[in-house]
Amino acid sequence: MSDINDIAKQFVNFYYTTFDNDRSQLGPLYRTESMLTWEGSPIQGVNAVLEKLVSLPFQKVAHKIETLDAQPSSPTMASILVSVTGALKVDDGESELKFSQVFNLIPDGGSYFVQNDIFRLNYG
Amino acid sequence: MSDINDIAKQFVNFYYTTFDNDRSQLGPLYRTESMLTWEGSPIQGVNAVLEKLVSLPFQKVAHKIETLDAQPSSPTMASILVSVTGALKVDDGESELKFSQVFNLIPDGGSYFVQNDIFRLNYG
Repeated sequence: MSDINDIAKQFVNFYYTTFDNDRSQLGPLYRTESMLTWEGSPIQGVNAVLEKLVSLPFQKVAHKIETLDAQPSSPTMASILVSVTGALKVDDGESELKFSQVFNLIPDGGSYFVQNDIFRLNYG
Repeated sequence: MSDINDIAKQFVNFYYTTFDNDRSQLGPLYRTESMLTWEGSPIQGVNAVLEKLVSLPFQKVAHKIETLDAQPSSPTMASILVSVTGALKVDDGESELKFSQVFNLIPDGGSYFVQNDIFRLNYG
């Protein structure tokens, strides 16, 4: 499964680097059918996803990945389930917030798009 | 999506109640093709999954679910992605351990089996 793990690692590095630099640039990862559940709020479609991400009430954010696991997620297509746990800091706060995030990636012409995205903070 | 959320809630309640009472009884939820990644270790198939769960080094365990999110996970079948965060206590320990767990449930004759299962402790 080294291919799947490599793809998951590449995706996750790209996602969080882009999120931390300029999250308005995450649009190409999503499609009309993409679903995001952000802290329990369900959102669907690339435009609504971007609107949500851009409206989050912080200017600066830095994600640190602690664990990354990947599995093939379908018997009928080469989709990949990716589970991340980590910590993030927002703005000039001192304290880290733990988070977990799950992605389901669907192959699409040599690349992948995000079919499913579930984000939760894990309060300690 | 109330159906999906209801199914996810039923599954999660059944899974953790069974896990906490007698985790050797979780076999019917898994199939030959089921995958479990437990704290980074990949395991495949109902027998290997059960062997892993039964061999975990604690006698008593109690899970507390804190968040539960569900989404349809495939454009071509009625599979359900379920993401759980929570806390657990083992044996007579005082301290809670935070965890996150992801399931991908595949429909199978009126019920569901676990295609994907990823478990991680979130150290604080």
